[in-house]
Amino acid sequence: MRIPNHIGIIPDGNRRWALNKGFKKEEGYDYGLDPGLEVLRLAKKAGIKEITYYGFTTDNCKRPMVQQDAFKKACVDAVRIISSEGSSLLVVGNTQSQSFPKELLPYTKRTDMNGGGIKVNFLVNYGWEWDIEHILDSSGKNYSLQNKLHSSDISRIDLIIRWGNMRRLSGFLPIQSVYSDFYVVEEMWPDFQPKHFERALEWYDKQDVTLGG
Amino acid sequence: MRIPNHIGIIPDGNRRWALNKGFKKEEGYDYGLDPGLEVLRLAKKAGIKEITYYGFTTDNCKRPMVQQDAFKKACVDAVRIISSEGSSLLVVGNTQSQSFPKELLPYTKRTDMNGGGIKVNFLVNYGWEWDIEHILDSSGKNYSLQNKLHSSDISRIDLIIRWGNMRRLSGFLPIQSVYSDFYVVEEMWPDFQPKHFERALEWYDKQDVTLGG
Repeated sequence: MRIPNHIGIIPDGNRRWALNKGFKKEEGYDYGLDPGLEVLRLAKKAGIKEITYYGFTTDNCKRPMVQQDAFKKACVDAVRIISSEGSSLLVVGNTQSQSFPKELLPYTKRTDMNGGGIKVNFLVNYGWEWDIEHILDSSGKNYSLQNKLHSSDISRIDLIIRWGNMRRLSGFLPIQSVYSDFYVVEEMWPDFQPKHFERALEWYDKQDVTLGG
Repeated sequence: MRIPNHIGIIPDGNRRWALNKGFKKEEGYDYGLDPGLEVLRLAKKAGIKEITYYGFTTDNCKRPMVQQDAFKKACVDAVRIISSEGSSLLVVGNTQSQSFPKELLPYTKRTDMNGGGIKVNFLVNYGWEWDIEHILDSSGKNYSLQNKLHSSDISRIDLIIRWGNMRRLSGFLPIQSVYSDFYVVEEMWPDFQPKHFERALEWYDKQDVTLGG
């Protein structure tokens, strides 16, 4: 089986899931923590080399404060949970804004956790425009677009899996995603099941990757 | 019904269609011309304001020359066919490279055709990296990322429809596509039917567009 080197995870649907359960919208995020750990372990087992989680974006910070507090807390918790696994962990996002949770500052330099292992990138207070704007500051001669991104330590993504049935990138790493295959899971993220992940890999195995050639 | 302002068309599957018919790969492109005109007329009728066609990319120019000649000719023919309809027509792509068909140079400035109408953008010898690199040349103070793109005259895309069953953007306008909804048609582009377009619009109508908020 052809395994992707790098997968992107868009864990969407927490709020819709919560409403369906009779909870408040902001109560959904906590139920995404277990799936986050589970998908990491499955990815390691499958031999995937790099995984990027879409935490929250600068655009998400237009939402009501009670929701913002909830998804920020969930991201802090998620990063802490991941940090107790073997990985090479990096949090990427705009640390200059108030919306960036201070608890995550120590993770903004890539660090081997528990002996290292799979590259794990976690996007926190990420903005696609912020990511790309960075290249304007540069005047390097040996020009390479990807090296000028804020997210330059995140490689090209082979497979993006999005839960919650939306078929859009929502600003997820536009440069690394130009040739990504995009798999959509109907179920909401808190309803994560290993078979979603397995089906995504089976589907990816059948794709003809040409990069336009 | 909520109609998208701007749709992107990825007319993929011409080569696979040709092979299935017992033709040579390069013979498929010509069969994409009628669908191109048909979808334009349907878009106008639906009240869509802007449509962008993915012609060919700089990456596509890695393919065998006989295929390149065929898809370039099909793009030239497609633009000429569109130019006989009412539209505001613009061809966007890297005109500095040999791969750009000279016949299309007159269309690289937006022009009202036959009294004007729907904005039509046709990407020819387009490269996502080329598109974005342009912003490096700039030193403007009133910075706006989109205005610095080579494709700055192409607006944000609401709905992308891709034929041929691949679920990927393949470098299609990464900046304008950050929040696009993405609809995939199983059938190959030469097998275009109006119902594909209609189903895409019906699906789009049900999407909850939040732009992250």
